[in-house]
Amino acid sequence: MLGKAYDSQVCSIARTLEIVGERWTLLILRNALFAYSTRFGEFQRSLGIATNVLADRLDGLVSAGVLERSDEEGQPEYRLTPKGRDLATALIALTEWGDRWAAPLGAPIEYRHSECGSPVRVHTRCDACGQVEARDVEAHAGPGMPADRAELIEARIARVRAG
Amino acid sequence: MLGKAYDSQVCSIARTLEIVGERWTLLILRNALFAYSTRFGEFQRSLGIATNVLADRLDGLVSAGVLERSDEEGQPEYRLTPKGRDLATALIALTEWGDRWAAPLGAPIEYRHSECGSPVRVHTRCDACGQVEARDVEAHAGPGMPADRAELIEARIARVRAG
Repeated sequence: MLGKAYDSQVCSIARTLEIVGERWTLLILRNALFAYSTRFGEFQRSLGIATNVLADRLDGLVSAGVLERSDEEGQPEYRLTPKGRDLATALIALTEWGDRWAAPLGAPIEYRHSECGSPVRVHTRCDACGQVEARDVEAHAGPGMPADRAELIEARIARVRAG
Repeated sequence: MLGKAYDSQVCSIARTLEIVGERWTLLILRNALFAYSTRFGEFQRSLGIATNVLADRLDGLVSAGVLERSDEEGQPEYRLTPKGRDLATALIALTEWGDRWAAPLGAPIEYRHSECGSPVRVHTRCDACGQVEARDVEAHAGPGMPADRAELIEARIARVRAG
């Protein structure tokens, strides 16, 4: 558990990881998003995960509003909510990193645009300049950052810029 | 542990999560990338993590080639390798999801282009069509997917398309 450290409270990565920051959870969401799995048995067979762990993770994702459970035809189905579906970009970005650094036999999966079949990739773009390198990105304090911490963050960026 | 299930072996998300799929690990990388932390004490203070857990995670990231350890001035420093730095886009994508779904007081952090100061965001783009919705992305078999599994994947996509 991350605990309730102050730093975790004001970071959207930390909050995201509190919901989906566990390997099984992200693999369940991968299957829901890109393998169209909806049933307990589908997740179970594909992941080879213990049933009690899978039940726990599915319940957690339903509680978090990422999956929605329905019991049509006497069998529970788990479907992505808009909040769950919205994780697709992050999962594609994680896949791309794995393709570059941990796929000696080549990319196992290729993301393609359903309408035209061309490859889909994740890009880091500046609103003003278009595509930028991630190394040219700085993390500034936003509106949700308490003022005392915001000052520290901006001072740190200034120090780094000054070299 | 994910174990060595076949399915995990041919998925770049699974391989990525074997390296960085744990909350502390991703928060350590967040601090290295966007708070410029390099020292054990800096990570420890910011994350409030137990020192034995932090030492274990840092060692794991060094073994995985994501961080590089040096011992200049008698104090170890942990610096991102190109492989580690390349996780920035995935971390920005995770942040954006948290900003949309788990940041009631507004985004704590704003990513900005260091050269011009404008916001930087992650986009899902088709090579042919430009920006696309993540819901219009399909996961097809790539060159690293064994042929028998590739057939199953393509058959599943055809079934879903047929409704």
